[in-house]
Amino acid sequence: MQLTLADATDLAIRALSRAGMTAENARITADHLVDAALCGHEYSSLPRVIALAEAMRDKPPATAIRVIRENHCSALIDGGDNVAYVVSIHAIDKAVEIARKNGVAVVCANNTWFSGRLAYYVERAARQGFIAMHTTNTTARVAPHGGVDRLMGTNPFAIAFPGEDDPLIIDIGTSQTTWGDVVLARTKGEPLPEGMAVNPAGYPTTDPDEALEGAILPWGGPRGSGLALAVQLLGILAGSDLVIDDISNYGLFFMVIDPRLFMPSDQFPARVSAFRQVIAANRPLAASGGAVRVPGDSSQQKRRANREKGVINLDEKVYAKLCELAGK
Amino acid sequence: MQLTLADATDLAIRALSRAGMTAENARITADHLVDAALCGHEYSSLPRVIALAEAMRDKPPATAIRVIRENHCSALIDGGDNVAYVVSIHAIDKAVEIARKNGVAVVCANNTWFSGRLAYYVERAARQGFIAMHTTNTTARVAPHGGVDRLMGTNPFAIAFPGEDDPLIIDIGTSQTTWGDVVLARTKGEPLPEGMAVNPAGYPTTDPDEALEGAILPWGGPRGSGLALAVQLLGILAGSDLVIDDISNYGLFFMVIDPRLFMPSDQFPARVSAFRQVIAANRPLAASGGAVRVPGDSSQQKRRANREKGVINLDEKVYAKLCELAGK
Repeated sequence: MQLTLADATDLAIRALSRAGMTAENARITADHLVDAALCGHEYSSLPRVIALAEAMRDKPPATAIRVIRENHCSALIDGGDNVAYVVSIHAIDKAVEIARKNGVAVVCANNTWFSGRLAYYVERAARQGFIAMHTTNTTARVAPHGGVDRLMGTNPFAIAFPGEDDPLIIDIGTSQTTWGDVVLARTKGEPLPEGMAVNPAGYPTTDPDEALEGAILPWGGPRGSGLALAVQLLGILAGSDLVIDDISNYGLFFMVIDPRLFMPSDQFPARVSAFRQVIAANRPLAASGGAVRVPGDSSQQKRRANREKGVINLDEKVYAKLCELAGK
Repeated sequence: MQLTLADATDLAIRALSRAGMTAENARITADHLVDAALCGHEYSSLPRVIALAEAMRDKPPATAIRVIRENHCSALIDGGDNVAYVVSIHAIDKAVEIARKNGVAVVCANNTWFSGRLAYYVERAARQGFIAMHTTNTTARVAPHGGVDRLMGTNPFAIAFPGEDDPLIIDIGTSQTTWGDVVLARTKGEPLPEGMAVNPAGYPTTDPDEALEGAILPWGGPRGSGLALAVQLLGILAGSDLVIDDISNYGLFFMVIDPRLFMPSDQFPARVSAFRQVIAANRPLAASGGAVRVPGDSSQQKRRANREKGVINLDEKVYAKLCELAGK
């Protein structure tokens, strides 16, 4: 089925408010989720309201988000156990505010959980002319390279560069697959692709049940595992636990840089746009179906097309569940 | 054959000085190369003197390294066409100096070429209690994911975290293989492993000659390619060209953070050391030969062992060539 953007946003706000979010926080989260739908990321979109409402049922009420340490180029934020969809907006806005004055900002946040698409936050800064890098560690589901025991989460890494028009955005997870995808495979009764997970005894498995008992593998062998460990350590810098066993206390790291520190005004966005063209003009591999893709551009194009249509797609069962949560 | 550390350092200094480096710069570079040998990275060690001397023959004399822009949390350095082994030491030391005062530093450098092990520079900051991240773009040899035309270099990414004893250091290249390894395969008359390179027509190849005409593939598919593009863009921020066609004007990016901005003194190094133990205690995969490895630890262990022995290994032909360059 299809919903208008206004109806989709309203539905998400009602469901999240009834689950315990303030009106403002529900609005911030709903905007993110509807944007994910516009960008073509269905799993990261309105279905997430169900998981958020479930998690909030098990938690005491969130408290205010507070800056607990600050100097002229950094800040540390206590997320008050609010969802990271909201805390990350506070954090990236704080980082942009600092970088606007001083050129560079590092902002960390803890006492928060469940983030969305990291691209969403770094894009927000890049659209204001800044380079933004962001990582977060998450609930432990992933073993380090060569290991069996869960240590890291999907531990995504994102970086955005301002362009003359759209920013160039790189947003990558550091695990072979996600917990959600393994659960989905189990629900569908399908095996996992090979090389995604190990069972608790440390043998490769394609059985989702075994994978859920064991661990997901890191992406990219020792190098990807190294990157995942770096994201974990930046989370620890932000005040996360060494290993996150439940859905709490993720560590968010944000760095924002004003490119005008290094070159005259507007020169960097022009160079990013020129580089975007160099990438797109790269001759495709013989076996490739089409042009070389600029990272993040597919999301931007879908967003533009879907915004023109003014609607998003939603599974009917998810819609029914959201109506129930919204008390409709 | 074996050389004492003093003899190896002296030989490298003489050869580099005769090739045109100042005594101070030759010493900085020689220290890096000998350290690479101690850490077990033979290819990145004394044999590099030959490539450095060759490259300097084709270049006008280098000029002074200068800070050309600076604010209280950033600096931009003109490398004066000096080798990046030297410029990177100036840059990381500048970044540490700034971070010591202000907590955060971003330092960029351009007009430089040929770096060494990025781990060397970030370790230098981490041993003083700082988190350091460093990237550099290099001569274009690598196509973006799905493409044929050379766009990026090996574009390494490194980050180091201070521990109570050794720092935890992650240093990864973002290409499937290196130019040096392809040249070595050609010299030996051996094929490349599959999946490393494409020929100029965009077909996969294991023939080193075809690969040298074509392009090396990025590591890790679209995600690794995204990381390589991010490194390229940070190089462009530093003042590099969009694509580097020769051995010049690499763009170096350094970020240094004082962890005491976010937690009380000494707490972060203690947590890094605790996390290191968590990694090492991870149960190994059933198919694995041994314990889970902490990134960078193998280099640290080799360095300690080799330093005790007080000697490094050197190929006799390389030694003869170095003696020739040193005028011995």
